Amino acid sequence: MPAPCLTESAARLAASAREGTASVTGMIDRLLDRIDRLNDKTKAYISVDGEGARDAARRCERREIAGPLAGVPYAAKDLFETRRLPTTGGSRVLEGWQSDRDAAAIERLNAAGAILIGKANLHEFAHGTTGENARFGTPPNPWGPGRMAGGSSSGSAVAVAQGLACFALGSDTGGSTRVPAALCGLVGLKPTYGRVSRDGMIPYCWSLDHVGLIAGCVGDAALVLQSLAGHDPRDSGSAEWVVPDYAKALTRGVKGLRIGVPERHFFEHADPEILAATRRCLARLAERGATLLPVTLPDLAQARTVSLLLQMPEVLSYHRRYLPEKMALYGEDVRSGLAFAQFILAEHYVRAQRMLEKYLRETEAALAGVDAIVTPTCPIVAPRLGTVAVATDGLEEPVGNALTRFTSFFNMTGAPAMSVPSGLHSTGLPMGVQIVGRPFDEETVLAIGQAVEDRQGLLLDPAAGCCDGAAI
Amino acid sequence: MPAPCLTESAARLAASAREGTASVTGMIDRLLDRIDRLNDKTKAYISVDGEGARDAARRCERREIAGPLAGVPYAAKDLFETRRLPTTGGSRVLEGWQSDRDAAAIERLNAAGAILIGKANLHEFAHGTTGENARFGTPPNPWGPGRMAGGSSSGSAVAVAQGLACFALGSDTGGSTRVPAALCGLVGLKPTYGRVSRDGMIPYCWSLDHVGLIAGCVGDAALVLQSLAGHDPRDSGSAEWVVPDYAKALTRGVKGLRIGVPERHFFEHADPEILAATRRCLARLAERGATLLPVTLPDLAQARTVSLLLQMPEVLSYHRRYLPEKMALYGEDVRSGLAFAQFILAEHYVRAQRMLEKYLRETEAALAGVDAIVTPTCPIVAPRLGTVAVATDGLEEPVGNALTRFTSFFNMTGAPAMSVPSGLHSTGLPMGVQIVGRPFDEETVLAIGQAVEDRQGLLLDPAAGCCDGAAI
Repeated sequence: MPAPCLTESAARLAASAREGTASVTGMIDRLLDRIDRLNDKTKAYISVDGEGARDAARRCERREIAGPLAGVPYAAKDLFETRRLPTTGGSRVLEGWQSDRDAAAIERLNAAGAILIGKANLHEFAHGTTGENARFGTPPNPWGPGRMAGGSSSGSAVAVAQGLACFALGSDTGGSTRVPAALCGLVGLKPTYGRVSRDGMIPYCWSLDHVGLIAGCVGDAALVLQSLAGHDPRDSGSAEWVVPDYAKALTRGVKGLRIGVPERHFFEHADPEILAATRRCLARLAERGATLLPVTLPDLAQARTVSLLLQMPEVLSYHRRYLPEKMALYGEDVRSGLAFAQFILAEHYVRAQRMLEKYLRETEAALAGVDAIVTPTCPIVAPRLGTVAVATDGLEEPVGNALTRFTSFFNMTGAPAMSVPSGLHSTGLPMGVQIVGRPFDEETVLAIGQAVEDRQGLLLDPAAGCCDGAAI
Repeated sequence: MPAPCLTESAARLAASAREGTASVTGMIDRLLDRIDRLNDKTKAYISVDGEGARDAARRCERREIAGPLAGVPYAAKDLFETRRLPTTGGSRVLEGWQSDRDAAAIERLNAAGAILIGKANLHEFAHGTTGENARFGTPPNPWGPGRMAGGSSSGSAVAVAQGLACFALGSDTGGSTRVPAALCGLVGLKPTYGRVSRDGMIPYCWSLDHVGLIAGCVGDAALVLQSLAGHDPRDSGSAEWVVPDYAKALTRGVKGLRIGVPERHFFEHADPEILAATRRCLARLAERGATLLPVTLPDLAQARTVSLLLQMPEVLSYHRRYLPEKMALYGEDVRSGLAFAQFILAEHYVRAQRMLEKYLRETEAALAGVDAIVTPTCPIVAPRLGTVAVATDGLEEPVGNALTRFTSFFNMTGAPAMSVPSGLHSTGLPMGVQIVGRPFDEETVLAIGQAVEDRQGLLLDPAAGCCDGAAI
């Protein structure tokens, strides 16, 4: 029996496993072999559960495992607790620790038949968007040697882009799923705040943390979301909200949808090719029957400050437990963030919360007349490794600020947001377009994403960026 | 046409106004006259809108005003913004300020036909539970000369107890409605967090602030709640939750209800007569078919600290705007609170929020098997004016801590809670029993309250405590 190609979509892998037309064990063997060969170079995985994956593949072939994702191999950002593999958070601090349970998202994916291959590399404790990691190495961007893969879910994106997993779990507090997806030519989805349980995911900042997912195409994002979504009382942010049939959304088209185009902030100080690609996506959506409408989002001049004032005390509050013994084990960027956080006053945190509520009200009003908005995902393509600051159309800023400039606001509003490839830049690097919906309306986001993706056909060939150039 | 007696229930006043069997203008004239005579002594009102009330009474008689509360006179704690009267917050700080709008609660009551008589006295900015106010005077307890009326909604309780209003709006952040109701022999209801809009109510601490109401009987509490309840997008804490028919709840009885009796904390260090009165209420509920079950609530050792850590930064955040110019105008207790709040770190506020979530989860689990719980409202009867600390059964504590020891936890959980008179203490002072329901289930709270009230008949005669002893 043939082992299916690792570039197959999750939907096809699951179908062939279900129909018994392909060897799941053969596919998993080939995948593990590929990881063996490439992980030193890609640095995608921190740990791999070969035994567990082979066992799951056998049980899948014996029909002991079933479900919509049966036989589909995935990677989980190493912030998700797992019973069988250590959970490091990408840090020396947790070295030697092993959780005794699986995170809720892992439980759900396993219940859907997906096969956990290993734990993906990340920016230490998700505390940054460059994906740089001194302890476990920095995964390079598959599309540009010496370029960042983006983060914090760097290994998740690289694993999928390099054919080392079919999809991957990430987290997203300011763009940590969407940014690496955009930089690596993938689909990155941050569902609505409360849609997917974060139970068992090491928190960065629970006010803004979301579970995210990275996939090769919009259809797979919908399929994986279907298994992940749902209420979980163990997550205090979890919402009791009906989970619709996401597959249906993919066939819905965009005819009649009102798509908002922000008049300021999101089309400024960005690479002109990225803006042009975004406008091409918008034009195509209009051709397919969507109506484009200008929208004016709130003034975002203070938005980064507000986000940081919310994040830092929460980060400190979580990590306080480790500081007396393990302060020296943190990377320098995390350590300086924690040090800074100690001096933030409660009054300022409270004021940031009030600002957040103001943003929510203003955003709701601004978007009252549209079904979604479309922006570029990042204003820049993948920066060179080691870059500290960038200048974009006259705006100089730290590289992390640039990468999340268009994404982090939607962690504050909690709206569902997805990055979909919008084409290749003249440097050969991928660009992404961001689709943001109304809370709990991932369906519209997926429908628009599907239309954007259709436009491109096979523009982004996953094999193009692979380390070994070999067919995957 | 006879003017109805001011001790009539709101339901009867509204019925006679509706049927045209009584003179609303006559009743309002008598009421305003009574306020004229008694307000210097009772200190219930900070301002009175005689003209507005007389005009509303005339329009009511001309049928230009209708609704379930038509013709019913009420007082509003002077934290609620009003177009026609200044809003002082009980403080020198706002002197000279006049809002250009009515708070949402005022709007709703006016729409229901109720007649706003004036703005009730309070502990400055609701920042305390003794009701002491250096600027506007301290309303004495109608039942005991030289005793506290309790606070912070002191004037609201005294106005109702003295026959100077039929019911009153209060606020409740730690017990500010329930405590003065208990101390003054009245019904005090704090509906679920999110049930009644706080728009236009000067905040104390928006994480814990609730609109409250004080009435002479449980039936009136239900009637007033019916007009107040409902979603309001202008209040970020407002919930979209169906508003049931509260009148029906009053006829439902308690048969089959499971009533939890907390095993610790709520039956300790309390006046033995108050405990005995609470147990008598419980016994009567059991006689009427309710089942009493022991419940174990979370360990509350840190609850006051958690509550303060949430309150103080929010108080400071709100009042910061006035501090540069008006610091000296605050009373000493508020000023020292604001000074203290400046040194609370964001990390601690965040930790308090996490503790709050833990309390919520634990409380939900503890109460899974019951429909409501019953406790005393306060561990002590109204303390003498000027009291700083009290000792109750071996526990010494500041008087404000004692007064809110059994109430403030339910501001953190957001559950609906009502104080109903449980009898008279041997000192002649009223005692109260607290009924706490599940979130958004005010119906069960009202049903139990009705059963407790029935038990007592006319035990508490409103005229007994009135300043002038004259029939009201």
